[in-house]
Amino acid sequence: MHDLLIIGSGPAGVSAALCAKARDLDILWLGNKDLSPKIGRAERIMNYPGLPAVTGREMRDVFLRQTAEAGIALTEARIDSIYDMGGYYVACANDRMFEGQALLLATGVASGREVPGESRLLGRGVSYCATCDGMLYQGKRIAVVLTSPQLEHEAEYLAELAEEVLLFAPYKGCGIDLTNVTMMGGIPAAVEGEHRVEAVRSSNGTAHPVDGVFFLRDSVNPAALLQGLEMDGPHIRVDRQQRTDLPGCFAAGDCTGRPYQYAKAVGEGNVAVHSAIDYLHEKKRANTR
Amino acid sequence: MHDLLIIGSGPAGVSAALCAKARDLDILWLGNKDLSPKIGRAERIMNYPGLPAVTGREMRDVFLRQTAEAGIALTEARIDSIYDMGGYYVACANDRMFEGQALLLATGVASGREVPGESRLLGRGVSYCATCDGMLYQGKRIAVVLTSPQLEHEAEYLAELAEEVLLFAPYKGCGIDLTNVTMMGGIPAAVEGEHRVEAVRSSNGTAHPVDGVFFLRDSVNPAALLQGLEMDGPHIRVDRQQRTDLPGCFAAGDCTGRPYQYAKAVGEGNVAVHSAIDYLHEKKRANTR
Repeated sequence: MHDLLIIGSGPAGVSAALCAKARDLDILWLGNKDLSPKIGRAERIMNYPGLPAVTGREMRDVFLRQTAEAGIALTEARIDSIYDMGGYYVACANDRMFEGQALLLATGVASGREVPGESRLLGRGVSYCATCDGMLYQGKRIAVVLTSPQLEHEAEYLAELAEEVLLFAPYKGCGIDLTNVTMMGGIPAAVEGEHRVEAVRSSNGTAHPVDGVFFLRDSVNPAALLQGLEMDGPHIRVDRQQRTDLPGCFAAGDCTGRPYQYAKAVGEGNVAVHSAIDYLHEKKRANTR
Repeated sequence: MHDLLIIGSGPAGVSAALCAKARDLDILWLGNKDLSPKIGRAERIMNYPGLPAVTGREMRDVFLRQTAEAGIALTEARIDSIYDMGGYYVACANDRMFEGQALLLATGVASGREVPGESRLLGRGVSYCATCDGMLYQGKRIAVVLTSPQLEHEAEYLAELAEEVLLFAPYKGCGIDLTNVTMMGGIPAAVEGEHRVEAVRSSNGTAHPVDGVFFLRDSVNPAALLQGLEMDGPHIRVDRQQRTDLPGCFAAGDCTGRPYQYAKAVGEGNVAVHSAIDYLHEKKRANTR
């Protein structure tokens, strides 16, 4: 079991990983080998101290080089559920499980608002995880809402299983071209159904009957990831020490609220690791008493 | 009158200035042309994202170049008092005054603890400002506690006025060599006096009668700078938006508490400017209603 699981590889995750390494903490850092799709897309960042007028790609390259030189390993995984085991945490990605005494959520904010009906029907036809739930929709008709080109392979996996896919991919240059995939415009206006998903309504008002709706986003709603996590609207509620309401669970970066800024994320990642160190120290002391 | 006064040129101040510039805010940035004596002294910084394994001097040079390239002017001044005018703020440095609709305190933490008696006798023989109060001690015997070589010129100025100076300079290589200055060891154990300063007690226990004691530090206690500012021990109490208890007054960096980290300071400077922008916007809207 690791001391600390760091979930997310945006600026908050990078800062946390560097800080944990400097303090010689046993961490497992889970994220994306490109660090953050969102950073990569930033045109020019004018207000990050230390990197004058960098493009998002340049910032990402510096972060990649810096973490590599510091000898910090990144484990590629998209965590789709986390369990609070009352004393430690288990994070799951498809068929893999990772354990940590403490947990740092640096998961970013989902780009784009939640679709009406999404939360209500989560687990009842609405899913965030192709690998977890794809098999349930073999031979069925589903909708897939895809907000990042980097997740196209997951949509393709779903298209292999499903009979028919209605694909909502609200970005330019979607590379998916399969005979059972129908391209829809924009994002859905709503997910509908009484007890479980029955239809997805497109922005022009038409309801299309489907058995399930997959939302494949760069990041998921943290409340859906970890039960019992206290939220403040779409953000994780934290105090000035980046502590959440769950003991041993910390959060940093965009997932804790505005402003959505690199500097803020970096600062919070650092503070969260310091608080995690305090927590681990206190826990160890209590156990040896 | 400026939109925002930024007091301090450490990492929090740099971040705030860059952020304010990017948002085209009319600021006055007050600080030190070397930015921060404390940064300059840092040996190697391993956990600041974007600047791998930099020395403090290298970080400072990057910050200096970046703010210069962004066209941000720094006004050299050591602010020794600030007044809340109920709607705007006035910051004073010797004989100069600066006005701002809003205020951002990024003053760092005083290195070294307060000396017993210091707070109690502040304004009654204890002073933080050579230029403000030096004349009061013409021909008298004073103690000067000097924690930074960069302030030696202020101690020399006091030595010109006073009859005799007991100098406490707890760092290596103090360059002051004047016939009326007696070098003492370490820092004083206490400042003593019933209604006003009567003596300074050295670390070996001897009480030396003096008329006044000057503390010349890189940064002063914010509570002594601005009356009514709510503190939390030695730190300014702020919320997650970096708001203090005084409307329009924000704080960022080491002055708001631990961990004393570059990343934290940079993050808070950024967040504080965003909060100041919200405040100014709200104030303008209220005025035009």
